[in-house]
Amino acid sequence: MITLGLDSCGRAAGAAILQDDRLLYESYLDNGLTHSETLLPMVEAAFAACGISAAQLDLIGVGAGPGSFTGLRIGMALAKGLALPRAVPCAAVSSLEGIARGIFLPEGALVLAAEDARRGEVYYAAFRRQGQTLLRLCPDSVGRPAALAELLAGEEKTIFVVGDGAQVCYNELEDKLPVELAPSPWRLGRAAGVALGARVIWSQGGAQDASALRPAYHRLSQAQRERQEKLKEAKHQ
Amino acid sequence: MITLGLDSCGRAAGAAILQDDRLLYESYLDNGLTHSETLLPMVEAAFAACGISAAQLDLIGVGAGPGSFTGLRIGMALAKGLALPRAVPCAAVSSLEGIARGIFLPEGALVLAAEDARRGEVYYAAFRRQGQTLLRLCPDSVGRPAALAELLAGEEKTIFVVGDGAQVCYNELEDKLPVELAPSPWRLGRAAGVALGARVIWSQGGAQDASALRPAYHRLSQAQRERQEKLKEAKHQ
Repeated sequence: MITLGLDSCGRAAGAAILQDDRLLYESYLDNGLTHSETLLPMVEAAFAACGISAAQLDLIGVGAGPGSFTGLRIGMALAKGLALPRAVPCAAVSSLEGIARGIFLPEGALVLAAEDARRGEVYYAAFRRQGQTLLRLCPDSVGRPAALAELLAGEEKTIFVVGDGAQVCYNELEDKLPVELAPSPWRLGRAAGVALGARVIWSQGGAQDASALRPAYHRLSQAQRERQEKLKEAKHQ
Repeated sequence: MITLGLDSCGRAAGAAILQDDRLLYESYLDNGLTHSETLLPMVEAAFAACGISAAQLDLIGVGAGPGSFTGLRIGMALAKGLALPRAVPCAAVSSLEGIARGIFLPEGALVLAAEDARRGEVYYAAFRRQGQTLLRLCPDSVGRPAALAELLAGEEKTIFVVGDGAQVCYNELEDKLPVELAPSPWRLGRAAGVALGARVIWSQGGAQDASALRPAYHRLSQAQRERQEKLKEAKHQ
């Protein structure tokens, strides 16, 4: 079974190909370019390296948010484009879970995945590795990093912090909790993590038709917020 | 400072680019093809993705063995070809250390890197993460996996086992030591690990001219062994 994983919700982008649970290929790019320029060539490079075509995919996993609105739309659009002509099943993987699955965690380890949500906030979720599974400790959420001190209060085990919001969470939490910033190679998430998350969703019967894929924004976009504010102002005039 | 890392000593191949300590790009390929076909296109893809050329490299790190004789010669030849025209400094990174640096390790964690050496043997080395450094616990060695039970006897912390010889070491040690096989995405080593190892060598003044790069075979090749045996036989006749 061939799974393609796409990661474009954060600062880095990537593509990964699994054969069953074995990683055949992974690429990772954090060069500051927009994912609209980099993600499709990365998928083409992945196919070429593995000698496969889109027709051979059995499952497409895509980081579905929360994260950069533009980034996750690029990933979604590409997943749909690849999946629709051949009705390849798709799995919408929480981007935060994808990031958490992209770093090796020893048994019992805690990981806090955080993506920059602008305006002083982060998207976040926490997980604990338990045997072969990754236990989710809270739903994907958005808020100020200070909220995390409460969520994780009392934890005595090291909490590994990953994602492009990791640094601001670390700065907020380092006096309160035993947090450790993941080093650069594992900080920003890996497409293999998205592909592994897609395999879990698929095995639980959660894969879906590409037409049903929806990004999980978790809050309104700036354009929507501004429109609502304008409408509100117009009402009061 | 731009560092290129090349990994071709084991079953998987890869290329990575660091800007100082930040990972800009990494690729990983475990598709069964020979590295002679895959490594150069992977380096070209890395340059293209990062928008750089070989002329901009400040350091080239290459997995220098032990490992597959053919694989490490391919990596060495490519490193020399890229480095010589521009006198780019090179760092010969122990392949086992490169593999160990390619997986995230929590503080104090032990890692055993093992590469298949054929004839029932493995190349191996063990390391412990201590703060920001990776402490080497033994020199790169070659031998039967049973030798590792003695080397690591009494260890109570989990020992993470990586490399394409990980499975045979795990099978030998699982009754005797708290070993854990690294999952597929982090099992076979990453080019980022080679690049990080090259940075350490460079910072300690150990980078060298490409012409001085030598593979570390750690034992004779099959051809050399057979020649020696023939010479011995000829002597006795």
